[in-house]
Amino acid sequence: MVLAVGERIDDLLTDTGLRIIQSREVFSFSLDAVLLSRFANIPKTGRIVDLCSGNGVIPILLSSRTKAQIDAVEIQPRLADMARRSVALNGLQDQIRVLEQDLRAYPKIAGNGVYDAITVNPPYMPVTAGDHNENEHYAIARHEIHCTLEDLAAACCRLLRPGGKLSMVHRPSRLLDIVETLRRHRLEPKRIQFVHPHAKAEANMVLIEATRDGKPDIRLLPPIMVYNDEGVQIV
Amino acid sequence: MVLAVGERIDDLLTDTGLRIIQSREVFSFSLDAVLLSRFANIPKTGRIVDLCSGNGVIPILLSSRTKAQIDAVEIQPRLADMARRSVALNGLQDQIRVLEQDLRAYPKIAGNGVYDAITVNPPYMPVTAGDHNENEHYAIARHEIHCTLEDLAAACCRLLRPGGKLSMVHRPSRLLDIVETLRRHRLEPKRIQFVHPHAKAEANMVLIEATRDGKPDIRLLPPIMVYNDEGVQIV
Repeated sequence: MVLAVGERIDDLLTDTGLRIIQSREVFSFSLDAVLLSRFANIPKTGRIVDLCSGNGVIPILLSSRTKAQIDAVEIQPRLADMARRSVALNGLQDQIRVLEQDLRAYPKIAGNGVYDAITVNPPYMPVTAGDHNENEHYAIARHEIHCTLEDLAAACCRLLRPGGKLSMVHRPSRLLDIVETLRRHRLEPKRIQFVHPHAKAEANMVLIEATRDGKPDIRLLPPIMVYNDEGVQIV
Repeated sequence: MVLAVGERIDDLLTDTGLRIIQSREVFSFSLDAVLLSRFANIPKTGRIVDLCSGNGVIPILLSSRTKAQIDAVEIQPRLADMARRSVALNGLQDQIRVLEQDLRAYPKIAGNGVYDAITVNPPYMPVTAGDHNENEHYAIARHEIHCTLEDLAAACCRLLRPGGKLSMVHRPSRLLDIVETLRRHRLEPKRIQFVHPHAKAEANMVLIEATRDGKPDIRLLPPIMVYNDEGVQIV
């Protein structure tokens, strides 16, 4: 197992000893990915795809909860390579396949309705907003350069079978856009869960599950508080 | 002060000794109204209207927070009469005016853009759903018989000045319909707060503030938990 310059191996702190290759210069996963992995309602078997997969942290975390085949789609060659090496590091090559693909083109390659579930931790920020004084790897992961909400919803609609589930993590400030965009693409929001830094703070993350061709009926789950009243991290 | 058969006078448990006429057979306010009164961002002066006002509990509660003129619009004569007597009971005739009106017709009477803020605790249930084995007063208050979301949003759009604020309490299961309906009527959701019975329960109420002609930018406030971990009501 060869690490590139600046890379390190982190323990994913799971019971099963999963590990991941990270790099401060290129990509490190954050709490978003961990919470999405727990939130996602995934099938025991079948096929799952993780879009905007980065260094593959979500497929690796999901592997301990399912026997399903998991595809990891990542547009950046540098990150897809890290993901592939992390999969090998955990001996998960038979379960997880890393695909260096643009998600906008991917449905034509994969086919329509082939997945039972999709997970995605997409770029949060529109291209016009925020500070672009960051390296290209982070810019692509954070800003909607290669993946707008519209791109994402269109791809998910095609990739999911009817009844299949999309699980997403995003910023609450985008909630209304997300909901409207998903609905326009036949993805009906069914479960929403907000994440607050602590009990007296506004939400800074939102977890959303949508069902392809689902009927309207939304549930608002108990909120997740990252820190308790004593300032101790509890998730 | 004459009470009708079955009516009683309840203390509103405010510092200012406000009281209200209630009736188990006709209408009693619930926690929804109290939470909406606290949530609503109301002006110190100007004009406010409370739609679907019932026995007038919201205008009476708001009176302690503002010098604005408050109109209470209620379609049911029996409830409008109770509201009028409750206003008199509290000596608030100079601040609160009770109008026995259908909100669908009210903008033609009141005029366009005349209000700075609107509060509303509307019927939660579509006419087709739920159990209609209840008396007419409760049926009208609970089901969208005389007031659909569409009716409500259309009226609010006309009654509010640009920049004016609508504050509403509703059921989380209707959240996506509410958001879409408001946006179609130039009412942009700006603040959302969920209410959970306790920290481990799904939300059973949602408070929403929308601004007439506001720009898209939503905040998700810290959730309200009605009971704490020891089972003590804390709101």
